[in-house]
Amino acid sequence: MKIGIVDTTFSRINMGAIAIDELRNYAGVKYVRRTVPGIKDLPVEAKRLIEEEECDIVITLGWVGKAEKDALSYIALSVGKIIAELMTNKHIIDVTIHEDEAEDEKTLLMVAENRVREHVRNAVDLIRNPERLVKQAGTGQRQGYEDVGPIQR
Amino acid sequence: MKIGIVDTTFSRINMGAIAIDELRNYAGVKYVRRTVPGIKDLPVEAKRLIEEEECDIVITLGWVGKAEKDALSYIALSVGKIIAELMTNKHIIDVTIHEDEAEDEKTLLMVAENRVREHVRNAVDLIRNPERLVKQAGTGQRQGYEDVGPIQR
Amino acid sequence: MKIGIVDTTFSRINMGAIAIDELRNYAGVKYVRRTVPGIKDLPVEAKRLIEEEECDIVITLGWVGKAEKDALSYIALSVGKIIAELMTNKHIIDVTIHEDEAEDEKTLLMVAENRVREHVRNAVDLIRNPERLVKQAGTGQRQGYEDVGPIQR
Amino acid sequence: MKIGIVDTTFSRINMGAIAIDELRNYAGVKYVRRTVPGIKDLPVEAKRLIEEEECDIVITLGWVGKAEKDALSYIALSVGKIIAELMTNKHIIDVTIHEDEAEDEKTLLMVAENRVREHVRNAVDLIRNPERLVKQAGTGQRQGYEDVGPIQR
Amino acid sequence: MKIGIVDTTFSRINMGAIAIDELRNYAGVKYVRRTVPGIKDLPVEAKRLIEEEECDIVITLGWVGKAEKDALSYIALSVGKIIAELMTNKHIIDVTIHEDEAEDEKTLLMVAENRVREHVRNAVDLIRNPERLVKQAGTGQRQGYEDVGPIQR
Repeated sequence: MKIGIVDTTFSRINMGAIAIDELRNYAGVKYVRRTVPGIKDLPVEAKRLIEEEECDIVITLGWVGKAEKDALSYIALSVGKIIAELMTNKHIIDVTIHEDEAEDEKTLLMVAENRVREHVRNAVDLIRNPERLVKQAGTGQRQGYEDVGPIQR
Repeated sequence: MKIGIVDTTFSRINMGAIAIDELRNYAGVKYVRRTVPGIKDLPVEAKRLIEEEECDIVITLGWVGKAEKDALSYIALSVGKIIAELMTNKHIIDVTIHEDEAEDEKTLLMVAENRVREHVRNAVDLIRNPERLVKQAGTGQRQGYEDVGPIQR
Repeated sequence: MKIGIVDTTFSRINMGAIAIDELRNYAGVKYVRRTVPGIKDLPVEAKRLIEEEECDIVITLGWVGKAEKDALSYIALSVGKIIAELMTNKHIIDVTIHEDEAEDEKTLLMVAENRVREHVRNAVDLIRNPERLVKQAGTGQRQGYEDVGPIQR
Repeated sequence: MKIGIVDTTFSRINMGAIAIDELRNYAGVKYVRRTVPGIKDLPVEAKRLIEEEECDIVITLGWVGKAEKDALSYIALSVGKIIAELMTNKHIIDVTIHEDEAEDEKTLLMVAENRVREHVRNAVDLIRNPERLVKQAGTGQRQGYEDVGPIQR
Repeated sequence: MKIGIVDTTFSRINMGAIAIDELRNYAGVKYVRRTVPGIKDLPVEAKRLIEEEECDIVITLGWVGKAEKDALSYIALSVGKIIAELMTNKHIIDVTIHEDEAEDEKTLLMVAENRVREHVRNAVDLIRNPERLVKQAGTGQRQGYEDVGPIQR
């Protein structure tokens, strides 16, 4: 199995390094890492890793600023990542940190750390062990924060 | 007839299980089920089920959180599901629960339950019995809530 | 000439029936009618009618609810209908009723009735008599309401 | 050189006629004109003129109403015109009048008149004399209103 | 290495000239420059430079006005640039100045100058020296303004 990792220089946390660290827990998973300037550059790099580096899956690691304009870029990233997936029939797991989702930098760091690691696990499982995801269906997983859990009947 | 079911680990209700339960009412309908992390991962999985598993139709089961960012992801999902349909010429019935559409969890559970079941019925009919949908044209069907009904002349 | 008609079960007015009734005024126009659950299902059905049923043009008849979420679906529908057109090089005339565009149901019914009929006329003319549309260029046509007319010099 | 002109019946000004009048200043430029109902119908007609009528470039002339819904349609038009360009590798110059951009009809008429004429000039130059555009780079051109000019160092 | 530069006549700063000036620091980088009217014309010109002029990468230089409508055009540009990248598997570095991001023209000029130069450097490195970007991953680069830097552990 080969996984692509793409992060940005815009991000304030080295998300790519966290992803690679997490990958050490998985024997036999090769990876290729790329860094691009910002989130709108992620989709094409992901597609290149799938088509030119034969990655089975890619994780894109984005950081969205606080401005209104950043929200617009986030829409473009999201539509672009889905079109890249539809052109390749491969998953691209998009891990986004919104700079305004936590009140202080320490929390942001913790959220990013957890979210990246959990999505690396998701990406590996999507290829190797998709049944684990089926078992978690509807359980309110929240990567980065504590899971909210399922609604009880 | 073969139907694809894709739901998410983000959802707080096991929507895939409800869909599969509903399918028991239909003899001879085979299904394949997949679970992905979140709503932006649904379109490509739907396309894969159509192209790689030969599904005639797919139902995607999404859960949209309350944050502004979640609304942006919903746009991306919606555009993505339509592009996936246009690339395959197959229907992908998108069943979405918006976490803020009901006031309490109990109602949310009931809405989800009904909406999933009604759309499973729609999906089966689109393949086997499209005339039933034509008969319901303009009747104000509201999956999950009571139908609002047609405007009376 | 063959025209496709697609409407929804979500709509509170049988827009497809109005379109078919209007088509009686045009000799020699064949039609195929389909009904889908909601507006996000319209683009692929329109494309199928063009590619699999050899329609020269399709009219999609949508009903948009009052909620914020419905506006997001409307964007997806609009982008999707244009992509479907670009993939087929055929026109898909999108007739939309916004549930909040009139104050009472009676007016809504009248608007829908007029809008559908006028757009059926537009669709037929786009194929048979495109010069009629050129003659109406810049005249402020408003399907469903009274035309606002051209700005006078 | 052959140019496509597409306008709408929704517009309150005969923008196509203005474009054609402006073209009289250019010897040897052939044109084809089409009129469609509204702005969401422009992209596919532009693509047809490029692919079926061998136009080198197309000018789409749109009129956007004041309602919220009209802004949503404008996004769809804009995305659609760009996708049509990317599918054909030809420019489609989109000239849009927003009904609320001027306070009275007289001003709107003047803006539309100027904007259409200036963009016809742009379109001709993009094919025949692209160097003129390079000379105007960064000069704050505002088609329809007075140019704002470059920021002075 | 060959780089494409596309800017606009709408911009109030000659961004293309700045980009070309910056390129003097890089021996052996050839360039092609084009100017188009506005930001919605950038994606197709970028794609043409890649496909018809064999550019390895393109920098698009856009200027976004203050109006609501301009934000909508920015979404279309952003989605369009990503689709152009996905169709060519090449990067298109989008450099945008938002007219309202600085309080006075002098600051705007400085921001534009820096942002264009830094992104030219990014573009050259993406082709020649992608490892430099990897080294900057997560360091909070802010082209145009001072870098915000990484969040400290």
